[in-house]
Amino acid sequence: MTKISPMDEASRLTLMKALSGWDYDSAEGALTKSFRFKNFSEAWAFMSRVALLAEKMDHHPEWFNVYSRVDVKLTTHDADGVTERDTDMAAAMDRFAG
Amino acid sequence: MTKISPMDEASRLTLMKALSGWDYDSAEGALTKSFRFKNFSEAWAFMSRVALLAEKMDHHPEWFNVYSRVDVKLTTHDADGVTERDTDMAAAMDRFAG
Repeated sequence: MTKISPMDEASRLTLMKALSGWDYDSAEGALTKSFRFKNFSEAWAFMSRVALLAEKMDHHPEWFNVYSRVDVKLTTHDADGVTERDTDMAAAMDRFAG
Repeated sequence: MTKISPMDEASRLTLMKALSGWDYDSAEGALTKSFRFKNFSEAWAFMSRVALLAEKMDHHPEWFNVYSRVDVKLTTHDADGVTERDTDMAAAMDRFAG
């Protein structure tokens, strides 16, 4: 696949302002967030919506789940960093987590 | 919840012989396995079946997913170690991945 560029820092910071509770991991070039739900059922409902979107976007998160917790890392491997695909997905996750 | 005991080593080793590719993490008192699938769709199908079983058993895995890979850790927190709930779930996961 063609190598693409990660977004510049100013763009990332601007787009991250529209997000809720995401951190930037500079070592990994990734957006990270830990979502907490009431129980596994709610966590899984969230993950299921994300899974459908991820497959549709062909852009998949790295994520860890235990019971009501879902830790997410978003990065664009083809860019070795964060792109709009990541900020778009982060925004969708915020909406899904409501 | 009442504290229960983890299974003894002999029982664990016997039950693990019926499993496929699981390791025992002695520091964590957990069974671990990394499942690989063809793509995210297959990984997610596997995870969905496990999620339904986990909710039914009220016994939930710790798991990490990125695209076609699913890393699983099974332990029984009330026992601080591995119980039959973990070996039962491990066996079910092997069937689902089969």
